[in-house]
Amino acid sequence: MSNIRITILGAGLVGNVIAADLAGDFSVTVADIDQTALDKLGHIKGIKTIRADLSLLSSLCSAVKDADIVVGSLPGSMGYLTIKALIPLKKDIVDISFFPEDPFSLDAPAAENNITVITDCGVAPGMGNIILGYHSSTMKVDSFSCYVGGLPVVREWPWEYRAVFSPSDVIEEYTRKARYLENGRLVVREAMSDPELIYFDGIGSLEAWNSDGLRTLLKTMKVPNMIEKTMRYPGTTEYLRVLRQAGFFSSHHVEIGGNLIRPVDLTARLLFPAWELKPGEEDFTAMRIIITGSEHATGKNAGSSGNIPSVNKKKFVWDLLDRYDRPSATTSMARTTGYTCTAAVHLLANGMAGRKGLCPPEYLGENSENFNFIMRHLNDRGVQYRLTESRL
Amino acid sequence: MSNIRITILGAGLVGNVIAADLAGDFSVTVADIDQTALDKLGHIKGIKTIRADLSLLSSLCSAVKDADIVVGSLPGSMGYLTIKALIPLKKDIVDISFFPEDPFSLDAPAAENNITVITDCGVAPGMGNIILGYHSSTMKVDSFSCYVGGLPVVREWPWEYRAVFSPSDVIEEYTRKARYLENGRLVVREAMSDPELIYFDGIGSLEAWNSDGLRTLLKTMKVPNMIEKTMRYPGTTEYLRVLRQAGFFSSHHVEIGGNLIRPVDLTARLLFPAWELKPGEEDFTAMRIIITGSEHATGKNAGSSGNIPSVNKKKFVWDLLDRYDRPSATTSMARTTGYTCTAAVHLLANGMAGRKGLCPPEYLGENSENFNFIMRHLNDRGVQYRLTESRL
Repeated sequence: MSNIRITILGAGLVGNVIAADLAGDFSVTVADIDQTALDKLGHIKGIKTIRADLSLLSSLCSAVKDADIVVGSLPGSMGYLTIKALIPLKKDIVDISFFPEDPFSLDAPAAENNITVITDCGVAPGMGNIILGYHSSTMKVDSFSCYVGGLPVVREWPWEYRAVFSPSDVIEEYTRKARYLENGRLVVREAMSDPELIYFDGIGSLEAWNSDGLRTLLKTMKVPNMIEKTMRYPGTTEYLRVLRQAGFFSSHHVEIGGNLIRPVDLTARLLFPAWELKPGEEDFTAMRIIITGSEHATGKNAGSSGNIPSVNKKKFVWDLLDRYDRPSATTSMARTTGYTCTAAVHLLANGMAGRKGLCPPEYLGENSENFNFIMRHLNDRGVQYRLTESRL
Repeated sequence: MSNIRITILGAGLVGNVIAADLAGDFSVTVADIDQTALDKLGHIKGIKTIRADLSLLSSLCSAVKDADIVVGSLPGSMGYLTIKALIPLKKDIVDISFFPEDPFSLDAPAAENNITVITDCGVAPGMGNIILGYHSSTMKVDSFSCYVGGLPVVREWPWEYRAVFSPSDVIEEYTRKARYLENGRLVVREAMSDPELIYFDGIGSLEAWNSDGLRTLLKTMKVPNMIEKTMRYPGTTEYLRVLRQAGFFSSHHVEIGGNLIRPVDLTARLLFPAWELKPGEEDFTAMRIIITGSEHATGKNAGSSGNIPSVNKKKFVWDLLDRYDRPSATTSMARTTGYTCTAAVHLLANGMAGRKGLCPPEYLGENSENFNFIMRHLNDRGVQYRLTESRL
């Protein structure tokens, strides 16, 4: 066990799994406002818990004061401001929150403080970035498509869904406009638009629709075609489109009987209990990443035409089907997201994630040593990405 | 023009059409809290308007003080209490509101005051009752099925619906448990249950589902099989089932940011504008009533077997397809509901609706003279019920 001390902010569905995974190798502290969430860590030896309202700067600073590395696993609404507040404290940060703000505004402050801030470091965003970063370092990538869904095994009408991470971030997925690149041109579409069916062995057909998952890739990658889609059981997204169309996801106040309320707050109040993963309820994570591009063949792999180097057009398909872990009662979403995050923590602890400033996950993947480390780390924990490579 | 004075309570979508229809024959006063609604009657000669909060007893009494007959066309939430308050004033009443209370509790007070109170006197409830009353007076009815829907011609996702009467009563239709009779046994089912497709010439397939439209018929008729279903465009009701399942129609208060609000109030706030019939927007009313039963043949129609009178099993299908009236810009729902109501007003004015106390519409239909009067009255206004009779 190293002497490095990690503080994890947020003891939620994923934060607790991150804590458990890191506890064997580091000195781990977990802070959350919710004592019940913290109590779930009580059985794990060596984890220190702090009950604290992390929206208060003083509590936040106090929670991380002994940490060498901070892990942010707070809801998206808190993520950005938390990182911003932490940067002057000069601690490396790995964050998994789906915050709406521009992470590049964190780059200069992080660089000035000589620290590394790794954002979006989950399964999606996260692993999609890492895999694209990896390929883009060895080939000219033409297109990147990422399909991802975290779903319950048992389907209950009408949502056939459980929030396997912060439920307010789930609603964000349904409302935040989706951005993708088509022939180098930015396209902005409604969330949940352009549904298409995708088949997964062992799962069946899922419906994939536009979500705003590219994030930093839109800035860091020079790939002309990039798209990210979220998957749900077919038909269920129509109900969400109806709720959005009717205004139930609106955050504009309306007056009801003299009180000003935001429709989304009532919707959250009604839907979050229905979306709650019950104890022992099983989920899975399905992901398919399709990357096409061209490698310049050199040396003995060069084409027979002599002077003109041949171009190998290739297609790489990465498939993930990860399931709930029964022995440890760990959701697949917490496994796939949390272990990506803990891989990054190890890279930081080992001094491998060299870049100071903002380090989106694609920068980790660009380094093949880091990429291989992450894949091994995930594989050791049973999260297995299967690669199919073909010529085009 | 008679000297009889009519006060209409409620200048809504239907109330205003009732007022316009009665204005030629009677002295008409219309009362409503909404001046804008009253202003729409400004162009009709001889209609007096009163702006008044009819939920206040003093305003209500003042609005009806000169009336011989009162027409109630208020939202269902106000209907029952209004009638109850009016009974001691000894004025005959025709009401069209979809109120949830038991109308039979009005029978004794109305009879004691020697007045006639006709409730549910629209198209449905209303015409279904009148037609069943008519047949039940001449045959032993085995079954009664009533399918009815008032829909916009132009279908807009997701609801493909406009509220052609009080929108709060529309939500009532989606939440109030539906009662029907099967082999003499009362069955209580969720509203919107047991969807089935019904085809209408010129309209296409509609989806019919259980609604609580039998009302007084459950008590007044000795018919072993009776059911009433509401119709919508296929698929659209699923969204309403989802809203109900999620709790958006609940009238139980929930606390949102320190304020107690009823989800249904927010839902109404968001959906009513989307359900609003725009000026000039066209609707239609589709209704199909199927009645089966047996007539005892007598005299020369008797069977050839001599002593044993033969039984004629018959089926009567009444079809209505009424459309928006362009010249007068009158919705079909206002036509079909309002003109049923004005027929009853004429019966009262002519002294033809004899029963004192509660007089649900089926009691009007049991008298063939009244039945024929109502059918003629509707036909004169272009509301045409088509009868198909067959032997079983």
